[in-house]
Amino acid sequence: MTDGTHPGNQPGNADPAAETAVGPDAGRTGPPEAARAAVVELLGVLAYGEITAFERLAEDAKMAPTLDDKAALAAMAVAEFHHFESLRAHIASLGVDPAVAMEPFVTPLDEFHRHTAPGDWLEGLVKAYVGDGIAADFYREVAAHLDPASRALVEEVLRDTGHSAFVVEAVRSAIERDPRVAGRLALWGRRLMGEALSQAQRVAAERDALSALLVGGLAVPGFDLAEIGRMFTRITEAHTQRMATLGLAS
Amino acid sequence: MTDGTHPGNQPGNADPAAETAVGPDAGRTGPPEAARAAVVELLGVLAYGEITAFERLAEDAKMAPTLDDKAALAAMAVAEFHHFESLRAHIASLGVDPAVAMEPFVTPLDEFHRHTAPGDWLEGLVKAYVGDGIAADFYREVAAHLDPASRALVEEVLRDTGHSAFVVEAVRSAIERDPRVAGRLALWGRRLMGEALSQAQRVAAERDALSALLVGGLAVPGFDLAEIGRMFTRITEAHTQRMATLGLAS
Repeated sequence: MTDGTHPGNQPGNADPAAETAVGPDAGRTGPPEAARAAVVELLGVLAYGEITAFERLAEDAKMAPTLDDKAALAAMAVAEFHHFESLRAHIASLGVDPAVAMEPFVTPLDEFHRHTAPGDWLEGLVKAYVGDGIAADFYREVAAHLDPASRALVEEVLRDTGHSAFVVEAVRSAIERDPRVAGRLALWGRRLMGEALSQAQRVAAERDALSALLVGGLAVPGFDLAEIGRMFTRITEAHTQRMATLGLAS
Repeated sequence: MTDGTHPGNQPGNADPAAETAVGPDAGRTGPPEAARAAVVELLGVLAYGEITAFERLAEDAKMAPTLDDKAALAAMAVAEFHHFESLRAHIASLGVDPAVAMEPFVTPLDEFHRHTAPGDWLEGLVKAYVGDGIAADFYREVAAHLDPASRALVEEVLRDTGHSAFVVEAVRSAIERDPRVAGRLALWGRRLMGEALSQAQRVAAERDALSALLVGGLAVPGFDLAEIGRMFTRITEAHTQRMATLGLAS
């Protein structure tokens, strides 16, 4: 991230687009038009990610073996909804209809959840924990590359993650009771990560502005392509660490 | 409510039980033991009502035609969950395991929701609105009859209801687009009220302490049987009014 070069972009290709931004943005304190479009896409994918996470966690809470477990997973769902509310308000403050900002991400995120519907309570817990972790990593990675207002929001959301600590205890004691569970859940964790990466790739391929933001092709500090690779490496390593925390191979 | 007689109770039957309460309650500022058991039952049914409302609203949000609609119903679900959290904390503060307090009400409330699973988005909206309204009425009715700490909690939860205002607009405009909708939804509203009353009756028949609290048979200010009748009349009238607000006969 300290590497200032952007080998993935034509020099002078994107910056002029940002410099010539006019219209409703003139005089705004936020990022210029082209960068703003990319930020809106980023906030759109995060917002839709949060509301689908809410829906799926609320759904998975039905499989809870006890009322306490149900309440714990429901509390995670509610935390995601509050993130959604913050992101939606921020999108609206940029003059964009939040539903429009989220729309491009409906299909990939719905597909992700369709392909990773947990078969039982433990799979739901692992998905909640892994999903929460990957989301937090991603927030952490992008936060530094946003305009100050968007960064403050993402950092606020990030501070509020970590509702999934109860999962560690629940999964570890399930493995203690029946060690065979570990193999099945390890496979499940790999599948979750595989699906997440495959949908992320699909989004990156389809959303030029968002990709340009992430590879530093806009007039906001961003990533270069090598940095994107390192980001995925860091997120994958953190995933491995989380799986180990659960007592699972990855 | 100004009627001080309790025709539904043997005179001198319940008060002595409260007066002779000993044990962990001695010196507490809350209600005496027998009344406290009833209050715990009341808080238990409210708490389980809130967490099931959360689950069902989150589930019904899936049927939303737009992302804004989905978010609006999800916001109602989240409000119910926060009520659940407050009630659970208060039950725990009385030294009772919230899961134990909720357990007797799992079957009747699950049955209610099983019998009233909405078939489409509009039925889900009407259920959300009617359910929120009946719950608010009931909170209002019981608040005055509780010990100060429990009353403060119930009043706090009550102040936070009313997230369902968006339903009125949505249902009325659906009827405007297709007036035939009104007949179907009016029937649906009657069915919801019928199921609610039938499960309420079941709970009242099975839970002696709770019923005793409501008919004033404990050392807390309560209702008499005539007052219970008037309470149901008021709740039914408020339901009729709400249905009319939606543009529906009841």
